[in-house]
Amino acid sequence: MNPDISRERGNASFDLEILTNILDGGAEKTRRRREIESLVIRDPDFQHEDLNFLSRSERYDAAVKKSAQMIVKLREYGISDPEEIYSYKSCVHRGRPEPLDLHLGMFLPTLLNQSSPGQLETFFMPAWNLEIIGTYAQTEMGHGTHIRGLETTATYDPSTQEFVLNSPTISSIKWWPGGLGKTSNHAIVLAQLYTQGKCFGLHAFITPIRCMKTHVPLPGVVVGDIGPKFGFDEVDNGYLKLENVRIPRDNMLMKYAKVEPDGTYVKPPSDKLTYGTMVFIRSMIVGESARALSKSCTIAIRYSAVRHQSELRPGEPEPQILDYQTQQYKLFPLLATAYAFHFVGQYMSKTYHRISGDINQGDFSGLPELHALSAGLKAFTTWAANAGIEVCRMACGGHGYSRCSSLPDIYVTFTPTCTYEGENTVMMLQTARYLVKSYKQVRAGQHLTGIVSYLNEPQSRIQPQSVSSRPTVVNINDLVSLVEAYKLRAAKFVEMAAKSLQMELQHSKSNEDAWNNTSIDLVRASDAHCHYVVVKLFASKLSEIGDTAIHSVLSTLALLYALHGVQQNSGDFLQTGQISVPQLAQISQRLKGLLSELRPNAVSLVDAFDYRDEMLNSSLGRYDGNVYEHMFEWAKRSPLNRTEVHESYHKYLKPLQSKL
Amino acid sequence: MNPDISRERGNASFDLEILTNILDGGAEKTRRRREIESLVIRDPDFQHEDLNFLSRSERYDAAVKKSAQMIVKLREYGISDPEEIYSYKSCVHRGRPEPLDLHLGMFLPTLLNQSSPGQLETFFMPAWNLEIIGTYAQTEMGHGTHIRGLETTATYDPSTQEFVLNSPTISSIKWWPGGLGKTSNHAIVLAQLYTQGKCFGLHAFITPIRCMKTHVPLPGVVVGDIGPKFGFDEVDNGYLKLENVRIPRDNMLMKYAKVEPDGTYVKPPSDKLTYGTMVFIRSMIVGESARALSKSCTIAIRYSAVRHQSELRPGEPEPQILDYQTQQYKLFPLLATAYAFHFVGQYMSKTYHRISGDINQGDFSGLPELHALSAGLKAFTTWAANAGIEVCRMACGGHGYSRCSSLPDIYVTFTPTCTYEGENTVMMLQTARYLVKSYKQVRAGQHLTGIVSYLNEPQSRIQPQSVSSRPTVVNINDLVSLVEAYKLRAAKFVEMAAKSLQMELQHSKSNEDAWNNTSIDLVRASDAHCHYVVVKLFASKLSEIGDTAIHSVLSTLALLYALHGVQQNSGDFLQTGQISVPQLAQISQRLKGLLSELRPNAVSLVDAFDYRDEMLNSSLGRYDGNVYEHMFEWAKRSPLNRTEVHESYHKYLKPLQSKL
Repeated sequence: MNPDISRERGNASFDLEILTNILDGGAEKTRRRREIESLVIRDPDFQHEDLNFLSRSERYDAAVKKSAQMIVKLREYGISDPEEIYSYKSCVHRGRPEPLDLHLGMFLPTLLNQSSPGQLETFFMPAWNLEIIGTYAQTEMGHGTHIRGLETTATYDPSTQEFVLNSPTISSIKWWPGGLGKTSNHAIVLAQLYTQGKCFGLHAFITPIRCMKTHVPLPGVVVGDIGPKFGFDEVDNGYLKLENVRIPRDNMLMKYAKVEPDGTYVKPPSDKLTYGTMVFIRSMIVGESARALSKSCTIAIRYSAVRHQSELRPGEPEPQILDYQTQQYKLFPLLATAYAFHFVGQYMSKTYHRISGDINQGDFSGLPELHALSAGLKAFTTWAANAGIEVCRMACGGHGYSRCSSLPDIYVTFTPTCTYEGENTVMMLQTARYLVKSYKQVRAGQHLTGIVSYLNEPQSRIQPQSVSSRPTVVNINDLVSLVEAYKLRAAKFVEMAAKSLQMELQHSKSNEDAWNNTSIDLVRASDAHCHYVVVKLFASKLSEIGDTAIHSVLSTLALLYALHGVQQNSGDFLQTGQISVPQLAQISQRLKGLLSELRPNAVSLVDAFDYRDEMLNSSLGRYDGNVYEHMFEWAKRSPLNRTEVHESYHKYLKPLQSKL
Repeated sequence: MNPDISRERGNASFDLEILTNILDGGAEKTRRRREIESLVIRDPDFQHEDLNFLSRSERYDAAVKKSAQMIVKLREYGISDPEEIYSYKSCVHRGRPEPLDLHLGMFLPTLLNQSSPGQLETFFMPAWNLEIIGTYAQTEMGHGTHIRGLETTATYDPSTQEFVLNSPTISSIKWWPGGLGKTSNHAIVLAQLYTQGKCFGLHAFITPIRCMKTHVPLPGVVVGDIGPKFGFDEVDNGYLKLENVRIPRDNMLMKYAKVEPDGTYVKPPSDKLTYGTMVFIRSMIVGESARALSKSCTIAIRYSAVRHQSELRPGEPEPQILDYQTQQYKLFPLLATAYAFHFVGQYMSKTYHRISGDINQGDFSGLPELHALSAGLKAFTTWAANAGIEVCRMACGGHGYSRCSSLPDIYVTFTPTCTYEGENTVMMLQTARYLVKSYKQVRAGQHLTGIVSYLNEPQSRIQPQSVSSRPTVVNINDLVSLVEAYKLRAAKFVEMAAKSLQMELQHSKSNEDAWNNTSIDLVRASDAHCHYVVVKLFASKLSEIGDTAIHSVLSTLALLYALHGVQQNSGDFLQTGQISVPQLAQISQRLKGLLSELRPNAVSLVDAFDYRDEMLNSSLGRYDGNVYEHMFEWAKRSPLNRTEVHESYHKYLKPLQSKL
């Protein structure tokens, strides 16, 4: 054990295990998570070479191997709780996506939720037993965000009782679905349904794409891998071009909408039911933001505790880089953000379960708020985590660029969350739509409940005004007061966006133009709203914590998170009169103080996330702090070192000399 | 040609070629650049498979091959002007680093600048003819920023007239030098010189590391590749562990310092001479920031002109995504930034040449300012471009994640500039040191000249105060007035940092502690200073432009750059009384207006950067806009598509079915 990092651990002011339990949601959950992790890590079937040393085809191969083993073992061990499956899976694949993700996470659930009883009988067991391996083919080359614009067609032919599937244009080729390129033999294809000469919009069709015996693509099916990406090397994101592919009528998922044998279309009773999965996935992504950022902080903070560089005091040894104020200023606000997002993730998960319970009882009333919240928070947290990972990486100096740090991998694995499951700007605008609607309801005399209830308060409808004309409301040392400031900022920005929209409506040709011409303001409103929600949820989490020492250190983190946000957005808070100019200097000083307060607990606060070395897979982030030894061992195993002299020397460099 | 993009080009308000000439620095430079590019692009020896489809070893191999051919051809064509070599080289390697970069860019120049006449005779011609292939081995595993802390030792043994080189610790292993792993047979090793029992600090030693005949590592030399990184696949960044490696006395570079045969050390006359290269490279990096960002903007803006998505107006076709205000708000300020940095790069290059002329005449007076400027601007521009590339990538939706977009490659190739040649935060603090020193000189009654002369002005020494108590000074429609605002912001922030440092000095144990405790403020001061310099240089560039149409469009860009910066840092400008709260809303409105004004010129403004398709290598950024066709062609060539059925199916998926 590196002595620097041991010393850091001795400085903790709190009991690590209690904090880990809080993060896991209880001591029993911690125990079970560790049990599952040990199950994977001790399993000789899951040992593998460092993925960084493999080609993409080898990485895909290794991932398929592990996924196949994983499925056998999950059933062997009887692990069936979704959270436990998640733990097991992310341990097997070390947090990376894998080729069967879409089969397990989209194909099977969609079958379960949207099949008629007969379809369930036909398709579910073969899919459960991996004879049918499926994916979910929605996105097309030219269509992602706007799914109504999808171009793939499914035209019903009553003479044979078949649907004829086609990709009529190049932009209609299915593009991106995971597992589509090489792994799947079936796809649930989203296509525009045509029957009796009319288009009835998007429906889902179970489409065989490869022979179940030979895995060779079926006639009329052009399928393949979309090529290398920024990360996601293990996944065969694919393309699918359909050329008059005929499937039986029974392959349209018919739990809700139906096409009768004669081609008569029967409408679904409600469209709210398909809404839930999307909301669920977005809610889960908030937790992913917390995980990606907490891993990055673990690596950067541990490394900063063992890395020594430069001189602080002449003649003294080089200090730990964690002692530099600029380093603390980069990393500690991100640490606070990781904790904040973790608690927001817990809240989203709880809220989702509560509301989906209501939905199962036929009560849809909670869905619009959850939808708006999950959209905005998905965008807010992924953007912040995305930028934060890179700050962590660059805080590790040159070594952060090495794949042995794991930071490049965390980034490329995480960054797609900003785009998939709803592009972030589009998400922000969806939340804004809800906020503006709520604002209008208040103006129309309604009383709001839930997270937007702050829009009821009259003080939110005061015009923005100059800083000096209002009494200062914020106590910068009081989290409750800061939550209030964030709330007022959100209220003002919602109001400003709504008014700006109103004004545009007076000049614009259409509602849509007005909306577009206000969209910068609308995104800002959503951002301020989400920021408020995060600060508020962090603050309310504190009230649940009984342990004094942990309450104290988490309070420091929460205050840091809130004040750092005020500083970074000081124009907003000055503009809305929440803070005064002299307070800005006080905030700067207070922030420096908070950095110093956190310094002795920094390593223990990342230890509490409890990532095993096998999960982090980072030379810089090792628990024992023996960074350099392991970097050297790792480098020696680099494929370029397999021979002493690379063949290019004989091929090009040696001959070059004679030419000069 | 895609009709959308043709239509865009028809909308340009200015003559493209004139703007390209301005960017290149004259019509003749444009002509010559294109001539050199054609030379490479037409050359059948430089055709290659898409690098995205190769393994790292294959990419290294392909790069060595091209580098070897490049050297022969450069000499064949007699291309010797450094800028022309740069053009040729970046065309051959499509802007990527290559295995001989350090040989050409550091080893040869260091030999030239620091060898004694005898050494020049011994080493230069073999190195010129690539019999000696060299690298520059400075950074160690444990030492990057603080070069005085390097641990490698060179101990003089007068009995044999040799130096004995050693890597005494694991952290002293040389780590990162490009071309060190596999390519080089020599390294200039930076080591602590010991002679006659005393340490004389860092000196440079020409160290043979591989046999010149067989390329096998020499005895006592442990050398290899440091393993895969975030990008830089073509370069064998290496490690070097020296175990009692003996080299002749004559292998110490002795133009300045010397060790006599008996071991007597002779001091160098001045240490300013080694300063120049570093300043030169940092100045060049400013230009790299402009290039990386302008490439990214070219890709994102062209793609946004051909991509259609969602509905703006019901019933109408899906609009070009460039018509969304949020998309314009992401991309146009970055376009303005790319232009700004381009002009700053031109200024830095000119200034460097002027000052190195002075230095050659023995006048070092310009060096400290250039040093401070190049450090800060290197950090300021690389941070901004780094974040900007990712904004461009994410503005392309899902397809920005595909390697066919080239955006992931631009990012990983560019991002190391934030760390190498001076870690950015360290750079900002070096600039801050100069600013604080200058501020103190003014306080001591001196009159400053040059870029910091604004610190002379008395208004900069007014206390920050509340927004309403000062008359508003900024005219938000006037660039000159905005330059003034940036200047005052910089002056205030320098003053605030200097005062904060002063205050810390009253409490701190040492100057160094005080400096560390003020470093957040010092970085902010540097940032404000650099921001001012960029806005000012953009504004002064405008005065050189005679063409009315181009002057007009560049003025719009400059105003957008300046106002966007005010909005993003509104707290600073409110705090220092430069703008008022009501002006903030006006700025928001004005920014929206500027986005609309730029919209018709957006594609032409990126066309003016004049990147050939071969240089961009991006399906999304193609000049002809035929994005989807080329994505599909590219994907079909993906290595995973070489077989219809991937072997993992037979190995794992087929057998899995029988186990379930």
